Amino acid sequence: MTTPAVAGGHGPQAELDAKAVDRLVFFSDAVIAIIITLMVLEVRLPPLPEHASDADVRDALVALWPKYVAVVLSFLVIGLFWTLHHRRFNRVRHVDAGLVWLNLLFLLALACLPFASAIVAEHGGRTPTILYASIMCAASFITMLLWRSVSGQPEIAADPAAYRELRIAVLMSLISVCFFLGSIAVAFFSPTLAQACWFLVFIANRTAQEVYMRRHRPVSGA
Amino acid sequence: MTTPAVAGGHGPQAELDAKAVDRLVFFSDAVIAIIITLMVLEVRLPPLPEHASDADVRDALVALWPKYVAVVLSFLVIGLFWTLHHRRFNRVRHVDAGLVWLNLLFLLALACLPFASAIVAEHGGRTPTILYASIMCAASFITMLLWRSVSGQPEIAADPAAYRELRIAVLMSLISVCFFLGSIAVAFFSPTLAQACWFLVFIANRTAQEVYMRRHRPVSGA
Amino acid sequence: MTTPAVAGGHGPQAELDAKAVDRLVFFSDAVIAIIITLMVLEVRLPPLPEHASDADVRDALVALWPKYVAVVLSFLVIGLFWTLHHRRFNRVRHVDAGLVWLNLLFLLALACLPFASAIVAEHGGRTPTILYASIMCAASFITMLLWRSVSGQPEIAADPAAYRELRIAVLMSLISVCFFLGSIAVAFFSPTLAQACWFLVFIANRTAQEVYMRRHRPVSGA
Amino acid sequence: MTTPAVAGGHGPQAELDAKAVDRLVFFSDAVIAIIITLMVLEVRLPPLPEHASDADVRDALVALWPKYVAVVLSFLVIGLFWTLHHRRFNRVRHVDAGLVWLNLLFLLALACLPFASAIVAEHGGRTPTILYASIMCAASFITMLLWRSVSGQPEIAADPAAYRELRIAVLMSLISVCFFLGSIAVAFFSPTLAQACWFLVFIANRTAQEVYMRRHRPVSGA
Repeated sequence: MTTPAVAGGHGPQAELDAKAVDRLVFFSDAVIAIIITLMVLEVRLPPLPEHASDADVRDALVALWPKYVAVVLSFLVIGLFWTLHHRRFNRVRHVDAGLVWLNLLFLLALACLPFASAIVAEHGGRTPTILYASIMCAASFITMLLWRSVSGQPEIAADPAAYRELRIAVLMSLISVCFFLGSIAVAFFSPTLAQACWFLVFIANRTAQEVYMRRHRPVSGA
Repeated sequence: MTTPAVAGGHGPQAELDAKAVDRLVFFSDAVIAIIITLMVLEVRLPPLPEHASDADVRDALVALWPKYVAVVLSFLVIGLFWTLHHRRFNRVRHVDAGLVWLNLLFLLALACLPFASAIVAEHGGRTPTILYASIMCAASFITMLLWRSVSGQPEIAADPAAYRELRIAVLMSLISVCFFLGSIAVAFFSPTLAQACWFLVFIANRTAQEVYMRRHRPVSGA
Repeated sequence: MTTPAVAGGHGPQAELDAKAVDRLVFFSDAVIAIIITLMVLEVRLPPLPEHASDADVRDALVALWPKYVAVVLSFLVIGLFWTLHHRRFNRVRHVDAGLVWLNLLFLLALACLPFASAIVAEHGGRTPTILYASIMCAASFITMLLWRSVSGQPEIAADPAAYRELRIAVLMSLISVCFFLGSIAVAFFSPTLAQACWFLVFIANRTAQEVYMRRHRPVSGA
Repeated sequence: MTTPAVAGGHGPQAELDAKAVDRLVFFSDAVIAIIITLMVLEVRLPPLPEHASDADVRDALVALWPKYVAVVLSFLVIGLFWTLHHRRFNRVRHVDAGLVWLNLLFLLALACLPFASAIVAEHGGRTPTILYASIMCAASFITMLLWRSVSGQPEIAADPAAYRELRIAVLMSLISVCFFLGSIAVAFFSPTLAQACWFLVFIANRTAQEVYMRRHRPVSGA
């Protein structure tokens, strides 16, 4: 009774906490929605002469293909970050100042991704590859701190399923940090090989997610 | 008691599910709000000489008319998608990873519409017409998969009214896919005729919506 | 029991209705937040030479004053629309297709305001004045239809305070329509005089709001 | 029973009030999310020649460093405003017209920050420094009025912890107003020294926040 938040009670403090979590989640969703949408809306046809032929329009559309690839890949990457944030934050029962700021830094790192992916799409090469890998590395490092902080909350520690899920989240973030750090080193020899590494992170994350879901189901059905 | 989600109960799992649905709906609304608003905000007068006469301003405003038409039509199309998403998602009681990703792809397709409609407005012709029809076709195909996935959920299958509504949604999406595929074929002969087809889809959707609402009312009043 | 929505009950239908209202309100808020924020964010200093003196920067900042005025006035106008929408939609208990589309058209009209106010700020003169007045007239006309539709709902008709508030809303919208139509006529003789009329609408709205609030208080306190 | 809002009751009026507070908070979050995200998304590489070497890309990235600094600092400033708004608005139980407008003015001031910080980053010097300090001063002055208005609400006055928190908020805002006014005076002699003052405000705010949290904890645990 003296610590309703820990016991997951429904007292006025728990209600205030739930509101603060909802507001944080909402704010994150709004920021991610803006990032993901503006990234798509900014793909534009360069200005063509007024009486451009249909073939000119087709050529201009085709010439944009690296942008399409960059946008779709960034969309999938940010979408993946969002779905993971979505599922894991569902476990969080209260927020403190540290969590709020880690979440803000996470959103800052995500907001830098379209900048980096546009440069990769346009110029390729070593520097853009290292830039992109650094931002992904920073984003993964921040999520590692974020989920580590959440997994240390007493409400989480009291719920074995939630605790295990968040420990997996910390582990997955750590794996991503290592992969992206490695890809920075690889980029000095071959940017293309470094970019290939990124797909491995993506696959590793998806695999870990699948593994998690298979392990998680029997627990919730028990 | 063992499967509260299926029974539509109010246990902790149902609460978590409701939250996940709300967050998905919220995210979709935010993305659609950004698409629809930026499309309007991006209509701008081209820079005029500093001491432009009132007639110059009037001519510049009048010259923008294809943009006004494109924006109003896109607004209606995205508005229609939104109202349908609005009403149908009201039925959904839980989300899984497949639904989240189908919804993200749906939002990606919607976000491409202003790009395509701007090109149709500025250049007309065959390529822009095919581009617009392809995106609409993709959006309709994704909504078909989306509603098919929802209609297969046990909570929906257990509620005849919801099930019928979502089967109609699948059917309507399939009709749209066929119309837009057809209009791509037509565009090779006459882009104007292809664009006329689009209004038929719009009318067909509205009609189906009216039919649905007439059928739906007695059920909810029973 | 057969018409829970009318009786303001808490059955499953009332819950679904409340959700639909919330989602509409949320969507409107998101659109208005985007309009109001982008309008401010788009005020930018024109590019200055790299080693511009402090006096150059000051002159460039001062030269932007018509934009500051336009933004602050538009901000107040859209803010007023929002606060009124805010308070009145608090009364609404269910939405139908007509309300959804009237609300979408209202948002479309609001989204056109920054376009019009930027042209008024930059060029003044007759055409921009008529453009701005026409959009405000359209927005007011749509809100008139919107609140008339809401005031016809059985839940509203059953609550005298809500009914009176919404009838006042219809009246205020009608007054605005007349003022702006009048200002279009005036603009043919003097754009400046027409713009002066707009402040009268603003004052009239504020006055009506104050009158309403004084009348409203005793009712809610009874 | 006659004044349920004051007693924090759960009657229909309290429910309406809670909804109005939620909508205001939501609107504020949406506006702040847009400001903070667009500020980051607008950092772009200037167009480089088509076959730019990797060194050219690196130089262009490095040349943007004043923008990175401006964005990260503005991000922290707006983030701090948001976290404070977040925690304090959690106390608010009802909104009146004055609060709505003060909040709108606060958002207007926040939306001007990226404009000012971009000018400081690009030109430095006296005028940009005064501009930035003036906007921060205005924002702080508005928050002072805002929290003073909230602390005068009967629900707040009835809760000692909430009352004390909001009085501290008023005091902190007043301190900020004085610091920024002072920094404007300092800027006439040395813009660099004036900018150094800003960090003092930041530190003062953080310190006051820490002090507040230490004082607050025993009260909520009692």
